[in-house]
Amino acid sequence: MRSIPRLLWSLAPASLILALALPPAPPARAAEPAAPARITGFRAAEVEAERAREAAACAVPKADSLRRHLRILTAEPHVAGTPADRATAEYVRDRLAAWGWEAKIEAIPVWLNYPKLSRLELVEPTREPLAVRERGVAWDKDAYDGRAFDAFHGYGAAGDVTAPVVYANYGDVDDLKKLAELGIEVKGRIVLVRYGKIFRGLKVRNAERAGAAGVVIYSDPLDDGYDRADPYPRGQARPEDAIQRGSVQFLSEGPGDPTTPGWASREGGRRLAGAQAAGVPRIPSLPIAYGEAQKILLALEGPVVPAGWQGGLAFTYHVGPGPAKLHLETAQDYAVRPIWDVVATLKGREAPDQWVICGNHRDAWTFGAVDPNSGTIAMLEMARALGELAKTGWRPRRTLMLCSWDGEEYGLLGSTEWAEAHADELGEKAVAYVNVDAAVSGKEFGAGGSHALRDLLAESLGEVADPGLGAPLQKSWSDRLFTAQRADWARRNRERRWRGEPERPFEPDLSPLGSGSDYTAFEDHLGIPSLNLGFDGLHGTYHAIYDDFEFMDRVVDPGYPYHLALTRVWTRVALRLAEAEALPLRFSNTAQFVQDELQAIEERMDDANVGVTDSTRLLRADLRPARAAAAHLREAARAFEQRADAALAGGGSLATINAALMAAERELLGAGLPGRAWFRNELYAPGLNTGYAAVPLPRLGQAVLDRDPVALAAGVAPIAQALERAAAALEQAK
Amino acid sequence: MRSIPRLLWSLAPASLILALALPPAPPARAAEPAAPARITGFRAAEVEAERAREAAACAVPKADSLRRHLRILTAEPHVAGTPADRATAEYVRDRLAAWGWEAKIEAIPVWLNYPKLSRLELVEPTREPLAVRERGVAWDKDAYDGRAFDAFHGYGAAGDVTAPVVYANYGDVDDLKKLAELGIEVKGRIVLVRYGKIFRGLKVRNAERAGAAGVVIYSDPLDDGYDRADPYPRGQARPEDAIQRGSVQFLSEGPGDPTTPGWASREGGRRLAGAQAAGVPRIPSLPIAYGEAQKILLALEGPVVPAGWQGGLAFTYHVGPGPAKLHLETAQDYAVRPIWDVVATLKGREAPDQWVICGNHRDAWTFGAVDPNSGTIAMLEMARALGELAKTGWRPRRTLMLCSWDGEEYGLLGSTEWAEAHADELGEKAVAYVNVDAAVSGKEFGAGGSHALRDLLAESLGEVADPGLGAPLQKSWSDRLFTAQRADWARRNRERRWRGEPERPFEPDLSPLGSGSDYTAFEDHLGIPSLNLGFDGLHGTYHAIYDDFEFMDRVVDPGYPYHLALTRVWTRVALRLAEAEALPLRFSNTAQFVQDELQAIEERMDDANVGVTDSTRLLRADLRPARAAAAHLREAARAFEQRADAALAGGGSLATINAALMAAERELLGAGLPGRAWFRNELYAPGLNTGYAAVPLPRLGQAVLDRDPVALAAGVAPIAQALERAAAALEQAK
Repeated sequence: MRSIPRLLWSLAPASLILALALPPAPPARAAEPAAPARITGFRAAEVEAERAREAAACAVPKADSLRRHLRILTAEPHVAGTPADRATAEYVRDRLAAWGWEAKIEAIPVWLNYPKLSRLELVEPTREPLAVRERGVAWDKDAYDGRAFDAFHGYGAAGDVTAPVVYANYGDVDDLKKLAELGIEVKGRIVLVRYGKIFRGLKVRNAERAGAAGVVIYSDPLDDGYDRADPYPRGQARPEDAIQRGSVQFLSEGPGDPTTPGWASREGGRRLAGAQAAGVPRIPSLPIAYGEAQKILLALEGPVVPAGWQGGLAFTYHVGPGPAKLHLETAQDYAVRPIWDVVATLKGREAPDQWVICGNHRDAWTFGAVDPNSGTIAMLEMARALGELAKTGWRPRRTLMLCSWDGEEYGLLGSTEWAEAHADELGEKAVAYVNVDAAVSGKEFGAGGSHALRDLLAESLGEVADPGLGAPLQKSWSDRLFTAQRADWARRNRERRWRGEPERPFEPDLSPLGSGSDYTAFEDHLGIPSLNLGFDGLHGTYHAIYDDFEFMDRVVDPGYPYHLALTRVWTRVALRLAEAEALPLRFSNTAQFVQDELQAIEERMDDANVGVTDSTRLLRADLRPARAAAAHLREAARAFEQRADAALAGGGSLATINAALMAAERELLGAGLPGRAWFRNELYAPGLNTGYAAVPLPRLGQAVLDRDPVALAAGVAPIAQALERAAAALEQAK
Repeated sequence: MRSIPRLLWSLAPASLILALALPPAPPARAAEPAAPARITGFRAAEVEAERAREAAACAVPKADSLRRHLRILTAEPHVAGTPADRATAEYVRDRLAAWGWEAKIEAIPVWLNYPKLSRLELVEPTREPLAVRERGVAWDKDAYDGRAFDAFHGYGAAGDVTAPVVYANYGDVDDLKKLAELGIEVKGRIVLVRYGKIFRGLKVRNAERAGAAGVVIYSDPLDDGYDRADPYPRGQARPEDAIQRGSVQFLSEGPGDPTTPGWASREGGRRLAGAQAAGVPRIPSLPIAYGEAQKILLALEGPVVPAGWQGGLAFTYHVGPGPAKLHLETAQDYAVRPIWDVVATLKGREAPDQWVICGNHRDAWTFGAVDPNSGTIAMLEMARALGELAKTGWRPRRTLMLCSWDGEEYGLLGSTEWAEAHADELGEKAVAYVNVDAAVSGKEFGAGGSHALRDLLAESLGEVADPGLGAPLQKSWSDRLFTAQRADWARRNRERRWRGEPERPFEPDLSPLGSGSDYTAFEDHLGIPSLNLGFDGLHGTYHAIYDDFEFMDRVVDPGYPYHLALTRVWTRVALRLAEAEALPLRFSNTAQFVQDELQAIEERMDDANVGVTDSTRLLRADLRPARAAAAHLREAARAFEQRADAALAGGGSLATINAALMAAERELLGAGLPGRAWFRNELYAPGLNTGYAAVPLPRLGQAVLDRDPVALAAGVAPIAQALERAAAALEQAK
């Protein structure tokens, strides 16, 4: 599971002001790779040794090894809890142990489903069964594998319904509102929606709340099919028969085992009955391919779809209802079953109780060559590289941990339950969490995360080459973000001039984390600074049977250069976190991000009030306390960073400094967000109605989206308090 | 011929800031219809009489009459210069004469082509002839009419070429630049481009300048086919066999007869040889339908198309070259032939030498039910209504003229040559020109024009009901623009606050005129304040055989309510221009528009300079002289408008006032734009590379688009001088 839509909240999409032939180069300052003379958190005298260590580690990973691991891990479909999944856990544990890691499998009992029956049939205007599995590709043996499950949804409900169809676009909250405005009744009908924009579970949730009898989700070629690129095997786009399986948990309301919401799943522990499970649908749903969906869409009449609802099929879409009528039948095998996290440790030499955690999930809906085992093979090669270092007698300053999560696809089960089980210890010991889900689905490096980790990442990227361009990844990352954001950046600088504020040079930044992978429990529930890294591209085989070895080996990353690059970035980031004398966390970046978000929220309030005449609906909030607290955090962090640099230069003890740095992100945790108390981070959360995409400063951001003046006004103080707490934590470390 | 893309230059497309469910209502002030107590330019005592006169005139037009005229005018295809076209001229002249107008046919000899042969054949990878005409619709007899020309291009070149194909998206300057960047050679090849974005002649021009051997232009379903609506006959979108015929003159470099560039075509007058004709292609071209184009596109390999080039067909587009190879053969019957303008006059009672001119073209590529004869029937019913008034003994204060232009489709021939022939007299006498091309292709009222006419139009719209909504058209026009522009409007107001400027209420405004219809010679060449009015919608039968009576009668405007509304708007505007004691021209609006455009150009310069390191490429211009002149014009116009209002209220003579108002727009004419001296208006022109869409303040706007620092710096003074001249004209009228 990983986020398909890459929604940059803080910067609106670049205005299409003009078809100006803009030059591609960013301003000189941004184009320069990070100066190699310095590494944040390291004493000058240690920089050379660190760089030598990293170089040694980075020389270890090999394309052949990566490929061999991938061939083994993707030999069979390995859905969480199946014997094939268990086999991958053993493979990973055995490799890690062989390379010198203290590695163990932790079994966690979780409630989940396998499909017993998936049936979909068009019954009107003509009767025709619709395919619930892929056809395969002649030369690719895996794609014929009968062991893959038929189309089904993780946490899908069982049911048997026959009803006319209504098309509801992406099935988001606005789409269902639009149908209501059009007078199209959803109640009792089967809602056909397309994948994309929001997390699939929320599509089912929204339809269910509107009274639908069932949901069919299909992959439209406009979103990840031929409209984007040639379909596999010619290219990376989705073939007409490829089905996106996936979880329909209501992810934005809380991940993890739905029968242990907010607490750890344990053998014999407290657990809700399946019928009481939290945040899962009660109506049946199925995913299908567009080759089948078009038979339904062609049989819909009623109004032509509203603007923005037309997809990529070669006819005009109508919303219905009917005359298309579907028979949708699903049966589920729900049970509490074990899943298997692998946790491996390389104990720290000086600060064994400071944990630097790297994680990746291992379970897959089918073969998982991209999602997630491209990440698994990167982690294995990183483990081998660090193991080689350890063979020389070296041990990291802090403890390094590698986690191979299971059950991510169902709802981040392995990471969430583990984090809940170890919450107190993690709260004390975790320095940072670095996640890689799919390591490589394309050629564009992407990174999200806690803004305190931005400088660490940017510096690390400065020392790894982009396989396509040769230049440092820091440059290609910056250039790509600059191209996307230049128009907004230029406008923002003009606006700063008008407001009498200083202009700012362009700097590439992390996108804030939403959800959709295993960083969620760490960042959003436990306040542990987290990163999520990967090379992104069109992943048209996503959750389909074609996400297999051949797809990766022939189409996505032949020769594995992007895997090697990602492994090197991950290794450098992990090593620096583990070795730096002063933790490379910069909360001045966090404060800057918050200040920008507060400005954006101010503007969105202003926009949302345009034309509102009912004063009770006006969005008004005095953001000054939050702005003041953000400014305070910024000043406190800058002063703190100067003290840390001085302490590093002066050779003094950094214990107090590091303790404050470990505390600061934790102080951003509050009492829990309205209606979803598991999400405790006051800065970062997935949107309640997006699931994947972040809505930063979620109390305020969500209130603006919901046009909720009460929630908006109530949201300022908790954010201000969190920022003040973080500032105080830094100020106390004198 | 009319502009398909509706590019609002002055306001960038609304940012997709958020999927906020914004309320649809504009601020209260904008929603109110114009107060009926006052009509600009009329003494208070005259308002009631004027309103009664307009009401009487507006009661005359009838749906039955409109329908009858349309059935007659669209009986046969009536391409300019054909006997069928002559018959429509006689029909219009006879009707106008019967209703009391002094009506005559003015024959103008022009050089133009008819197709002798249009042949297109796919020769590789398989051999297949491609259709060059439509198939027809069973129940629509017109659509079977063999008298329509095959696919061809007005001013297309003859030629016979066989070459591999390269796909070049819309064929604009940036698209060809992109191909060069990709290393795709266009030279010697046949370029396949899609219709849309820019005027078709510029597509051929761009390909020719890049060395192409021929051009094929097809209509992609993403632009006006099934991606937009159901194809005809179910809806208004383009069927798979419908061909967009049309002119390939280089319209933005100068319209009119290419053998008399800049001077009037007269019997026996000066004329270039056809081989020397200005602004027409030298390489052959043909239009085709997407049903045929997809056979070519499917046979293209090479790279996948760049972002934004994918169309609506159900496969991934590639740029080629080849393996698709085409045989393209065209033969043309070029000759100097007569075309027939109809000019009708109702002489003014007080100021016969002040002309209020209304115009519409009559010639069509096929039956022309929408384009242009929906406008022709509106003009006929307006003529009948004014004729009824005249029967009561009334004569307008000023002379009213109705012009039924011919040869518009080839390149605005009838209007341009007539305007060139009467340039001096028009310069002296013309008050305003009000154009209607297609009166009704949908339900959304749209208006472009000289900003001095904005208030006149807005007030007139306040007194005509929107047929769909019941409310005054002023409200539906304002609401629709508000919906499209609200995000930008809110942002602009924020920016004004930051700059310490006052905020502005939302006011719907005219879009600036580019080209593509008969206002061009009046506004751009002669500086006559012009308007262009119509109800817009998807016109998928545009220039195809399906633009026929059945299309209008059954699909677009059954019952003709939108024709009636348009006729009423046109009639009120014409009457007010002809009757107002003080001309209803407000140059304060013009000045405001210029100030906003200068601000926009400043920002675009700023944007364009981002990342530019070569200082010779930096776009720098001191806009202060132009800004000062615009501010001066604004102040002068405001003072002038107060004097005019006072003179009206006081009952004094308005001769000086009206003389100044007639002079002011003329003062905006300069020495002619760089490389296209026929375009003399310093405020309004089509983009050199758009053809249809306006690039206001064209010296500056075009220089920014072209990234030309020299042209930019040179462009400020002429604009400033034009504005100062206009200000002086108003100031002299004390």
